[in-house]
Amino acid sequence: MKNRSLLMIPGPIEFDPAVLTALGAPTTSHLDPGFIEAFGQALERTRILFQCPDGQPFVLAGTGTLGMDGACANLIESGDIALVVNTGYFGDRMGVILERYGAQVTHVRAVPGGHPTLEEVERALQGGSYKVMTITQVDTSTGVLADVRSLAALGQRYGTLVIVDGVCSLAGEELNMDAWGVDVAFTASQKAVGVPPGLALLVAGPRALKALNARKTPVGSYYSDWNNWLPVMEAYESRKGAYFGTPAVNLVFALQVSLGQILQEGLAARFARHERISRACKAGIAALGLGQVPLNTAIAAHTMTAPRFPVGISGADLLPKIAKAGITLAGGLHAAIKNEYFRIGHMGAVTPGDVLATLGAIETALTACGHPIESGVALAAAQKELLPRD
Amino acid sequence: MKNRSLLMIPGPIEFDPAVLTALGAPTTSHLDPGFIEAFGQALERTRILFQCPDGQPFVLAGTGTLGMDGACANLIESGDIALVVNTGYFGDRMGVILERYGAQVTHVRAVPGGHPTLEEVERALQGGSYKVMTITQVDTSTGVLADVRSLAALGQRYGTLVIVDGVCSLAGEELNMDAWGVDVAFTASQKAVGVPPGLALLVAGPRALKALNARKTPVGSYYSDWNNWLPVMEAYESRKGAYFGTPAVNLVFALQVSLGQILQEGLAARFARHERISRACKAGIAALGLGQVPLNTAIAAHTMTAPRFPVGISGADLLPKIAKAGITLAGGLHAAIKNEYFRIGHMGAVTPGDVLATLGAIETALTACGHPIESGVALAAAQKELLPRD
Repeated sequence: MKNRSLLMIPGPIEFDPAVLTALGAPTTSHLDPGFIEAFGQALERTRILFQCPDGQPFVLAGTGTLGMDGACANLIESGDIALVVNTGYFGDRMGVILERYGAQVTHVRAVPGGHPTLEEVERALQGGSYKVMTITQVDTSTGVLADVRSLAALGQRYGTLVIVDGVCSLAGEELNMDAWGVDVAFTASQKAVGVPPGLALLVAGPRALKALNARKTPVGSYYSDWNNWLPVMEAYESRKGAYFGTPAVNLVFALQVSLGQILQEGLAARFARHERISRACKAGIAALGLGQVPLNTAIAAHTMTAPRFPVGISGADLLPKIAKAGITLAGGLHAAIKNEYFRIGHMGAVTPGDVLATLGAIETALTACGHPIESGVALAAAQKELLPRD
Repeated sequence: MKNRSLLMIPGPIEFDPAVLTALGAPTTSHLDPGFIEAFGQALERTRILFQCPDGQPFVLAGTGTLGMDGACANLIESGDIALVVNTGYFGDRMGVILERYGAQVTHVRAVPGGHPTLEEVERALQGGSYKVMTITQVDTSTGVLADVRSLAALGQRYGTLVIVDGVCSLAGEELNMDAWGVDVAFTASQKAVGVPPGLALLVAGPRALKALNARKTPVGSYYSDWNNWLPVMEAYESRKGAYFGTPAVNLVFALQVSLGQILQEGLAARFARHERISRACKAGIAALGLGQVPLNTAIAAHTMTAPRFPVGISGADLLPKIAKAGITLAGGLHAAIKNEYFRIGHMGAVTPGDVLATLGAIETALTACGHPIESGVALAAAQKELLPRD
């Protein structure tokens, strides 16, 4: 069982008690009127969250990787060409999945912590008739934030379908599928959506569904085939039961609660809160003299922070001491710099107090490692960003 | 929210409160030592439950259909031939999935409620060099129980890999993968395993893993590819963290609790309890003069009962009245007889009292439909079977 230490990794995160209560409540039939209503609402709210009024939401039992799998399996046929705007581990994975379903893949890469320029992406788009372009909005391995709006506009100009991996961003970073021209986006429940792991959320826009219907070959994966799930999602949204696979009833009830909280907060307010908390966290890290993986603040995520270890201090030294001080953080994930940095998640139901507690624990741990810091410096820097403005 | 009405469908079912408490507990990191221990134990217990000491367990976020998908995607390459011992809806689905991954499929079918004879299956096996044979241990659409032991022996004699769909059976019906020569078996959490929906449990035996390694082409589905998940499952079982997709932390904690209860009860005692409760339910239904879908008791499941409606009474008449009397049951699923029968699930944490309550509600509802029955007759018949013998 979890104790009162804070879970500040880039997912799973600290969840709202009302969400956990819904998760642990006695299970109803997947055809119970109460569940049909909850699932219907969850689908409607997913569509609102993704800002895609004409899109089709899918809520499936699975991990975020199932979202990636669905996007690739349903849109790719053997011989299609695909462009991956690659900012880390999950760009690499997207490439592997696209290839699995028959695509020829080109990556536009940057150094770890960097982001390809729009010019580099455009040059790549000029080089071939790409069926899809993929963007990782926040690559959890680097904390790099993509400029999805500009990239999607570019993709649309060159006639590609635009897929956005929103696993570490959606409900924490703005994503407007409709206005920005994003054709498929997906996320996982345990990130900023605020529900324990086990659900993949995906929205397919009209052009993506048209591409699905225009396929000449069956979708490569049966479990991921939207044709199987589409009638079920449509049925629940029109408040009728349907069966293909048994919905993850308890997780869906929890999702309906969490999405209700998200819309209650309001998307604009929610994104602003994530920005404020992110600024506070990053100001605290900077005040400690620690570098960060993203090469500049314009490409730094608001859902997580990726500080570099000070010279002479390793993750094996620091992270257990932070844990002992009551905060669970994550190590590195990007192979090229794995031992050079750590990761703090701050999304979903995260509070200003969580960030202060985290920075306090990092200060304590650095001191315990013999690293010279001025006590309270990170906290003061963070607090300045947390104070309400105007 | 669920009220106190009893959920007596063939999954999801009534779950033990300790399982629901684990599900709703605050989420830990997927790399937390407590979670690593719980996941490791859940994997060990899955292997024991499936009775496959040399097998590799997989516990994945997904539905039972993900188990089917995994079995087919990992073992089938284009042009392989497959034999489906088909006893209903899920045999049909298995055929569709096998074909999706490139198999040529032959079905050995029976009338709804029947089971192909061993001779019919053997004749089919003689007709081709089948790579795999699939068996649905209990087809949820008919309540027909397959003689897995004899069928698997036949499959092994003809050199096929034997896949068992144990979704509506495992942890309620005996399945001894090792002794019976079953190469792959899988189930879903929300059935007799006793955990809310969202997890697929699968065990691949040594011959199945050998067949995976001998593939000439990549596995057709990325999400279902055992090569991705194998290092993760091995790591957790040896009490190390690992990452491919974020485990469904809360569901895995709940699974560890439920599997602990299952092994505490003991497999032999558990199967005997399911048999006794099943006999009681079926005796009650018979006492009411209702037929059942399985053509004879030797091929009737112990995890569910599939009563036929009395002449002149429809599901639209009867089932809402049963629901009003406090019991949620399921309608028909097999297309050919969909409106002729209903389904009662009795598995997992089901109690003798649950079956009596269910039969009482069916009596009440039949009376309300104007169907003449002798009040208490089903209850008396059931109680006779529920009394302890010697």
